[in-house]
Amino acid sequence: MRIGVLCSGGDSPGMNAAIRGAVLRGVDVHGFEMVGFMDGWRGFHEGDLIELDRTAVRGLSPLGGVVLGTSRVPPFEAPIGDDVEAGLAPIEAKMEQYGIDAFMLIGGNGTQTVAQILSGGGIPVIGLPKTIDNDLSGTDFTFGFDTAVSIAAEAIDRLRTTGDSHRRCMVLEVMGRDAGWIALHAGMAGGAQVSLIPERPESIEQVSEWVLSVRDRGRSSLVVVAEGFKLKGGESVVRDGLDGYGRPRLGGVAETLAPLIEQHTGIETRATVLGHVQRGGSPTAFDRVLATRTGMAAADAARSGQWGTMAALKGDRVEMVPLEEAVGRLKTVPVARYEEVRLNFG
Amino acid sequence: MRIGVLCSGGDSPGMNAAIRGAVLRGVDVHGFEMVGFMDGWRGFHEGDLIELDRTAVRGLSPLGGVVLGTSRVPPFEAPIGDDVEAGLAPIEAKMEQYGIDAFMLIGGNGTQTVAQILSGGGIPVIGLPKTIDNDLSGTDFTFGFDTAVSIAAEAIDRLRTTGDSHRRCMVLEVMGRDAGWIALHAGMAGGAQVSLIPERPESIEQVSEWVLSVRDRGRSSLVVVAEGFKLKGGESVVRDGLDGYGRPRLGGVAETLAPLIEQHTGIETRATVLGHVQRGGSPTAFDRVLATRTGMAAADAARSGQWGTMAALKGDRVEMVPLEEAVGRLKTVPVARYEEVRLNFG
Amino acid sequence: MRIGVLCSGGDSPGMNAAIRGAVLRGVDVHGFEMVGFMDGWRGFHEGDLIELDRTAVRGLSPLGGVVLGTSRVPPFEAPIGDDVEAGLAPIEAKMEQYGIDAFMLIGGNGTQTVAQILSGGGIPVIGLPKTIDNDLSGTDFTFGFDTAVSIAAEAIDRLRTTGDSHRRCMVLEVMGRDAGWIALHAGMAGGAQVSLIPERPESIEQVSEWVLSVRDRGRSSLVVVAEGFKLKGGESVVRDGLDGYGRPRLGGVAETLAPLIEQHTGIETRATVLGHVQRGGSPTAFDRVLATRTGMAAADAARSGQWGTMAALKGDRVEMVPLEEAVGRLKTVPVARYEEVRLNFG
Amino acid sequence: MRIGVLCSGGDSPGMNAAIRGAVLRGVDVHGFEMVGFMDGWRGFHEGDLIELDRTAVRGLSPLGGVVLGTSRVPPFEAPIGDDVEAGLAPIEAKMEQYGIDAFMLIGGNGTQTVAQILSGGGIPVIGLPKTIDNDLSGTDFTFGFDTAVSIAAEAIDRLRTTGDSHRRCMVLEVMGRDAGWIALHAGMAGGAQVSLIPERPESIEQVSEWVLSVRDRGRSSLVVVAEGFKLKGGESVVRDGLDGYGRPRLGGVAETLAPLIEQHTGIETRATVLGHVQRGGSPTAFDRVLATRTGMAAADAARSGQWGTMAALKGDRVEMVPLEEAVGRLKTVPVARYEEVRLNFG
Repeated sequence: MRIGVLCSGGDSPGMNAAIRGAVLRGVDVHGFEMVGFMDGWRGFHEGDLIELDRTAVRGLSPLGGVVLGTSRVPPFEAPIGDDVEAGLAPIEAKMEQYGIDAFMLIGGNGTQTVAQILSGGGIPVIGLPKTIDNDLSGTDFTFGFDTAVSIAAEAIDRLRTTGDSHRRCMVLEVMGRDAGWIALHAGMAGGAQVSLIPERPESIEQVSEWVLSVRDRGRSSLVVVAEGFKLKGGESVVRDGLDGYGRPRLGGVAETLAPLIEQHTGIETRATVLGHVQRGGSPTAFDRVLATRTGMAAADAARSGQWGTMAALKGDRVEMVPLEEAVGRLKTVPVARYEEVRLNFG
Repeated sequence: MRIGVLCSGGDSPGMNAAIRGAVLRGVDVHGFEMVGFMDGWRGFHEGDLIELDRTAVRGLSPLGGVVLGTSRVPPFEAPIGDDVEAGLAPIEAKMEQYGIDAFMLIGGNGTQTVAQILSGGGIPVIGLPKTIDNDLSGTDFTFGFDTAVSIAAEAIDRLRTTGDSHRRCMVLEVMGRDAGWIALHAGMAGGAQVSLIPERPESIEQVSEWVLSVRDRGRSSLVVVAEGFKLKGGESVVRDGLDGYGRPRLGGVAETLAPLIEQHTGIETRATVLGHVQRGGSPTAFDRVLATRTGMAAADAARSGQWGTMAALKGDRVEMVPLEEAVGRLKTVPVARYEEVRLNFG
Repeated sequence: MRIGVLCSGGDSPGMNAAIRGAVLRGVDVHGFEMVGFMDGWRGFHEGDLIELDRTAVRGLSPLGGVVLGTSRVPPFEAPIGDDVEAGLAPIEAKMEQYGIDAFMLIGGNGTQTVAQILSGGGIPVIGLPKTIDNDLSGTDFTFGFDTAVSIAAEAIDRLRTTGDSHRRCMVLEVMGRDAGWIALHAGMAGGAQVSLIPERPESIEQVSEWVLSVRDRGRSSLVVVAEGFKLKGGESVVRDGLDGYGRPRLGGVAETLAPLIEQHTGIETRATVLGHVQRGGSPTAFDRVLATRTGMAAADAARSGQWGTMAALKGDRVEMVPLEEAVGRLKTVPVARYEEVRLNFG
Repeated sequence: MRIGVLCSGGDSPGMNAAIRGAVLRGVDVHGFEMVGFMDGWRGFHEGDLIELDRTAVRGLSPLGGVVLGTSRVPPFEAPIGDDVEAGLAPIEAKMEQYGIDAFMLIGGNGTQTVAQILSGGGIPVIGLPKTIDNDLSGTDFTFGFDTAVSIAAEAIDRLRTTGDSHRRCMVLEVMGRDAGWIALHAGMAGGAQVSLIPERPESIEQVSEWVLSVRDRGRSSLVVVAEGFKLKGGESVVRDGLDGYGRPRLGGVAETLAPLIEQHTGIETRATVLGHVQRGGSPTAFDRVLATRTGMAAADAARSGQWGTMAALKGDRVEMVPLEEAVGRLKTVPVARYEEVRLNFG
């Protein structure tokens, strides 16, 4: 068997470890041949690929980013219409050209949706979930998320000392366009007084009341806000530029929020936008282990022919789940999880 | 309701965050009174206790160690015999003296066993699991473990550069007297070539063969070994002194193993014993979140009267499980998990 | 002798260690009484002060920010005119009221200028230099700088992996309004391909040429830019909001530069503004040692009556230099130091 | 000009950055050819060398260890006697064979002594100082030292939380066979209550008195001890095994000291030996900058023919000093520096 590996979407700490895990298990143990396409589907379209063997993945576990490169180049030239078979024909032609029998697709929601389409069309595919946002269904956590939370929590630790020294309110914007997992976990880890997430609009009056009540207890506030948070009853002011995902910015939430808080509370308030820093660099041990096991599980699944599945963390086990479980609906923060922290605001 | 909190056994990163979570939820949300006993059962026996309120737990989330102190002082003056009621009488007398209605006990296997005994005798108790070893049943992970793994993985990253520069085999001893979880996860995160755990004795010939095969591939070996590992067919040489848990050392495994490897392979080999460094200091974001949620869940369980339970991580939820699930049998590394890494040795 | 300590200006990692060093040496060894004014001159004006003894400074060395607080509240109600004596009278009256004989002033260029004015008017003062920007004359390095450089270098390490994975140019904005030390050192530490500093305007054509030449060598560019950098022949576009020093922003340099680079090179380019993150949190070991020694030297200087001096790092010694050496002219990056890195651009 | 680079002695964080700096400046700016010998003099003797150009040093700045490898293989087959010319003949023959005109030697005291011998014999040599111990004369600091201090200070931060939680005395052994710089700086950075260095024997009674006085103030002691420390009036107990430098151990100082402290004070005391961990891994930003500048200065010195010199940090400048200034006498901790910290013991 000869398997093609490719990464799609934004980079996420642990992608290298996942590739290494898949190759160590797939090539050395199961005897597969494996190739990697450079820069996602671009490499597939253009025939830019490398052989993946033990030497190619040497020392990859602690390295951030991904040696294969990744991109948002789409797999299909045109949208797949009703005639799926026809739509997939160009993909199958290339597969034959490269001599590959199956795919391992490393990516987030969009990529796993592609995996499902390929699989539905009869192409053997296994999905490896990856997103720093942790918004993929079907798995407890995705690799990259723990690293992003760690970096954001460290930023909170740092900002807090400046906030306390200057009696300021500090606002930290973290990633999370549709789901507030990073804000929720980093806020809890860093002891943020307020955590604001896309799933739960709040009014500026409510946010300011929390900040004031913290001041009344003699402390300075740390507000962590997900990029996709919206004020209740209003859109965030749209700002130019690109967000940490490389898409047009929703709004520079922290920079919008900080002056509003200052205006409502009279407390000097400063904004920091963490941005790309939270998605790069060496993965945490947790993400390295999760990614490595994800890669290994994917190789084992290929061995046993479990096509159309995705490697998922369930408790302390990595299991294969049908791609349907993962795609379609985003895993957002449930009300109960938000209430865990909200009750302690202010 | 007035609840007494105490910590027993070795310290574990996250204990402060757990206390903070329990107090923020217990005192502020549920209206409990809470007190903390200093240095575990010593403070209980001697009436050394402090009030726990929002101010007392301020800023605790990122702090290592535990502000209440911890110790191995036993709860009972004499072993509890058949007459449990009589055995618990001194405890109940003290509880009445301090005006406390219930306990939150933060500790590992030994402490949760005590919790079960108290609970069996009718004393309201909730357990908060804590061990860097991750060897407690009933929960996916215990807080402290992720921090220990992170520190051990960072040590591997560091040692590897020295090993590669000098073409040496580096042996790193990590904690894990009965269970090899730290060695397993840190070894996988750091890309160790060999991971040795208490659950699986190996012969020096086998270990040396792995090290030699790494050399034959042009690399230097990193061997991570749990403190409790034993060579097949033989006890480790017993060494004097105390291990990282404060108990008499089993054997200075790394220092025993390194010269044996050098002798069998002819490759210069060096030992490092990580020791206490891996159990102290600021917890990882993962452990802070897990510990905070554990504390919150314990407070909620007290509110709803779920005595005799322990807060456990199940997937991405923290749930209460009966203490029976946790105590009695140690959670050791299953064969399948060991095989995950062993297949890639050498 | 009774000495008043106060901090003025922005916070800088190491301020706590400096206070601790001064108190351990001043109170315990030399027998001084010491007090700390809260929030800089605000505490002095309002009589908000605390006693500083061994207990008050316990455990301060690793803590970021400053326990006394700091602010930009000015020392004088009105500008000091020609009649310095009259101008200083309110200060001296307060000193008598609080029973203090001398000052230790922890701050940057502005604060040391105040120290010089007080000293010129006969008030015993010793200066402790502090600025993350390292732009103070008379000393090799100021504490806080090494921490800021470390954080910026770590950000470069992280951004680089994302840049490489996506074949993007990454632009990182660091602090440095008038001096480019942080950009220079962080850029060198992180192996940035281009480092842009306030002392040396460059044209967008030149910057783009460097970025293109990196691409031609098959790599992705990392551009580090100091906040105060200006394009040759033009002002940076002024942006609203406040910079990392709490002053109105000069221009959001990175966010201005990134689209210009993308436009001139055709290479996808992303901006990150590190902001307040680089001035907070636990100091590096280097800064802790420098700050502690600075505090100790200040106490020794007070003991021997070396008023009107500032503790300065000279090689591996901390020495007292006249305040005149420090104030007046900013220490900017000399051409030769810039050439060290510029020659390797592109 | 064609220059041979080689590394000798133990590895030190920053060696890769130094090589990168020398090559970027030497090859790209000055037009040299450069080669690197693998594993120090072994590669020289055996003709194991690689070309060093921009591609070869790509991305090296943040990497620990050294890509060329290093060893303690001696340069000369026999001791150089009175007839230096004859003694150097084999070296010169090899130089001609490899076509190299000059050396850059990266190493500590021993290596720089070799550099001086070669230089005395007319061979063009430039020295690049490197030792984590910081015990080389002629320079303010050597690269590697700041990283070692940082790692040791972080270990102190971690151990302290365990010490405080268990009311224990924690003893940390750091490197420093002949000079106590690491213990001194890490101890000051971490706020150790006692720092013990080779230059200053102390009696166990004195050490215990310090530890007791800390206890009397309600705190737990952290004792940092350099490997080469000796108790007053006695040798440390000799232990088997190898120290962190790969030489036979002097004595396992921490493991000898801990039980003695426990016995004299009645306070539970635990030892940790940091070992190899403190010499590996990614260098601090400070060390990366110092190493890069050292490499650049060495290339510039080669360009201008300043043979027989070593690149040294003097204040904030890197300058060339005669090799005589560096070799011969070790830079140990002066009494005044020790007094800086000793006065605050206990």
